[in-house]
Amino acid sequence: MTSDPAQPFRTEGEPSGRAFRIGLLGHGTVGGALAELLPSRADHIAAITGIRPEITGVHTRSNGTTAAEVIAGADLVAELIGGLEPARTYVLEAMAAGKHVVTANKQLLAHHGEELWAAAREHGVQLRFEAAVAGVVPVIRVLQESLSGAHIDRVTGIVNGTTNFILTRMAETGATYADALQEAQQLGYAEADPTDDVNGKDAAAKMAILARLAFDTPVHITDVAYEGIEHLTGDDMAYAKDLDLGLKLIGTAERVEGGIAVRVHPAFLYRGHPLASVNGPYNAVTVESEAITEITMSGPGAGGPQTASAVMGDIISAMIPPASTPETTQSLAVVKDVESAFYVHLEVADRPGVLAQVAQVLGLQGASVKSVVQKGLGENARLVMVVHPLLESKMLAAVELIAGLDFVRGRPRVIRVIEEQFV
Amino acid sequence: MTSDPAQPFRTEGEPSGRAFRIGLLGHGTVGGALAELLPSRADHIAAITGIRPEITGVHTRSNGTTAAEVIAGADLVAELIGGLEPARTYVLEAMAAGKHVVTANKQLLAHHGEELWAAAREHGVQLRFEAAVAGVVPVIRVLQESLSGAHIDRVTGIVNGTTNFILTRMAETGATYADALQEAQQLGYAEADPTDDVNGKDAAAKMAILARLAFDTPVHITDVAYEGIEHLTGDDMAYAKDLDLGLKLIGTAERVEGGIAVRVHPAFLYRGHPLASVNGPYNAVTVESEAITEITMSGPGAGGPQTASAVMGDIISAMIPPASTPETTQSLAVVKDVESAFYVHLEVADRPGVLAQVAQVLGLQGASVKSVVQKGLGENARLVMVVHPLLESKMLAAVELIAGLDFVRGRPRVIRVIEEQFV
Repeated sequence: MTSDPAQPFRTEGEPSGRAFRIGLLGHGTVGGALAELLPSRADHIAAITGIRPEITGVHTRSNGTTAAEVIAGADLVAELIGGLEPARTYVLEAMAAGKHVVTANKQLLAHHGEELWAAAREHGVQLRFEAAVAGVVPVIRVLQESLSGAHIDRVTGIVNGTTNFILTRMAETGATYADALQEAQQLGYAEADPTDDVNGKDAAAKMAILARLAFDTPVHITDVAYEGIEHLTGDDMAYAKDLDLGLKLIGTAERVEGGIAVRVHPAFLYRGHPLASVNGPYNAVTVESEAITEITMSGPGAGGPQTASAVMGDIISAMIPPASTPETTQSLAVVKDVESAFYVHLEVADRPGVLAQVAQVLGLQGASVKSVVQKGLGENARLVMVVHPLLESKMLAAVELIAGLDFVRGRPRVIRVIEEQFV
Repeated sequence: MTSDPAQPFRTEGEPSGRAFRIGLLGHGTVGGALAELLPSRADHIAAITGIRPEITGVHTRSNGTTAAEVIAGADLVAELIGGLEPARTYVLEAMAAGKHVVTANKQLLAHHGEELWAAAREHGVQLRFEAAVAGVVPVIRVLQESLSGAHIDRVTGIVNGTTNFILTRMAETGATYADALQEAQQLGYAEADPTDDVNGKDAAAKMAILARLAFDTPVHITDVAYEGIEHLTGDDMAYAKDLDLGLKLIGTAERVEGGIAVRVHPAFLYRGHPLASVNGPYNAVTVESEAITEITMSGPGAGGPQTASAVMGDIISAMIPPASTPETTQSLAVVKDVESAFYVHLEVADRPGVLAQVAQVLGLQGASVKSVVQKGLGENARLVMVVHPLLESKMLAAVELIAGLDFVRGRPRVIRVIEEQFV
């Protein structure tokens, strides 16, 4: 490791670009995922930025490398320890030494944000924290950059994936709170001690950060009233269905008469609300403002690779000046004949064997039928089906053959179907 | 107007900050909205950045100010003319003169993007274009910054609000294509000549831009195969419901064997797809990558103030260095007692007058009942209702009174309801 402050970048030779040294504090789920992800994307990042990121030091409680050593040898420090101390001290030390910092630590920012942001301004370094709220969902960047000039009225969020998973399972399966929590723990969506997730404290820290950015006013975690989901029953879910409502743990930060209000509590949402369809361990945030109407962003709220991706986006932003569209680094062929599932709508004579013959023609082109709806209309019938994915050229060939069958009336209608690919 | 290139900022005195001069090319829907929005936010922007944006020149076809004059007097040029020429020439001239450019012009970038991005790199200026795709939905910034290091597999989008409005109305009301188009025109969601919207060409330009950013390879509009919605029938909508599918005009840019495929066409989506619930004139884009799983962003895809907000976000980003969290500029009070609608769940004795008494107690606190579900359970009954918004303190007082009524069994259960506020 080198640590010459006058020479922030080491030269690695032109082909691979200058090196940008990243020090990791912490090597748990997120730190480990980052240590895996970053090298796999280093060539791409070097190609678009001319700078090659590399991990030059890792500090854990037990690996014998001190945090001071990692900080000294880095251009940027990724704080992935969590908790208030020693994370706060390390982040302050890194910034005082002129190093950029990226952190995923929501409690640190909800307690000590003003101190840390002031230190970043004082030392002229970047302190980025996309991963601290809603994982890879880019709400921090959007609030700080896209909407920095906007007059924001309200931020509403599902910012805890554990509770959203539990509530989704209770709604879908009628499971009790206890059973849904157990399932979440088995699937890795809840920790062995889920207290801070289910009681709303985790979400409260995130809402404090979002409120600070949205309203440009200091918000400490003690300003956020929170209530958890432990007391909800399957009964509430059943009645929610009768009333056409969905039950979520919702964080709200909004302008109200006399100031702002920041809260976390269970809430029913009407079906039309943009957060009502956010299910499972996903997070989502809606930002409202008169001029923009609203923006909603959603995605995985946790997970090692996902959170590490958010950290990596912050690292790249700290490395390079913004908003230059780099030269293209590759020249991919644009392919026109691709696979798709299809909806096929046929008007046919209503006589036996029609479906079998259509299915046979489809089969000759490699198309297999997934679902069928058939309706009689006097002498005629309507045959509507969905076929499994196949090349478009094959589907078009099958349609030509089907159009030529003597029982087919009019032109077959064909529309693509996008399969369920998000679980 | 001053145009001394050696003095990019005029000093306006400390309180209001340095001035940042913005030249507008075009003063239609978006330009007019920006000319209204920007001055209303200038104090806030000056407070957080120390720099005050001001519009120092406007060029229209008929106002007598030339584009060259506007460019000469600006630090940043907002190109809001649309079309290929003279927009392309003006943008090139502005960048050659060392001015940043913000544009909302998708056709310009889909045709001439590589030339323009190369010019921006050559002259060391920023060329930002958030408003060119999906209005205020921050997909450009997220692709260029948050996900610049990611290996993206697929981008899927509803990127034309006109067609999404038409398809939504056809699905909701059973309207024909022609009637839904007419309604869209009456509401201002479709232009008098809607050709480029309904035939998919507008969406194709946007997908070319998204594919370029996602895959880091040149994509020209002629690389994008497109198909419109003009041939869809209400019949397709009805069958879609039978098959539990939703019909949208979908743009797809994805890696396939041999390269990438970029297309726009109508497609059915299964209900679980993140774009299936995007209705009306909204736009939405889903980005998939193995490490991040997926991110979805949605919001208004058009509209003067919305598009102008996207332009304003780009302007501020061009003004200031990134990602410093500015000092707070205000100190808003955090209010704890706020209004909310409530779900109230009561176990009561099953006898006449119970609902009336509960409603009376609620009424005393100013709470009015919106909807009620009552179920008999032998001697007991369950009364579940939603009440219209009132202060939480008043609701809690009402609940205390209700808990004391002699026919109420057990503790009333109260959960907040978030009202439909998005139309």
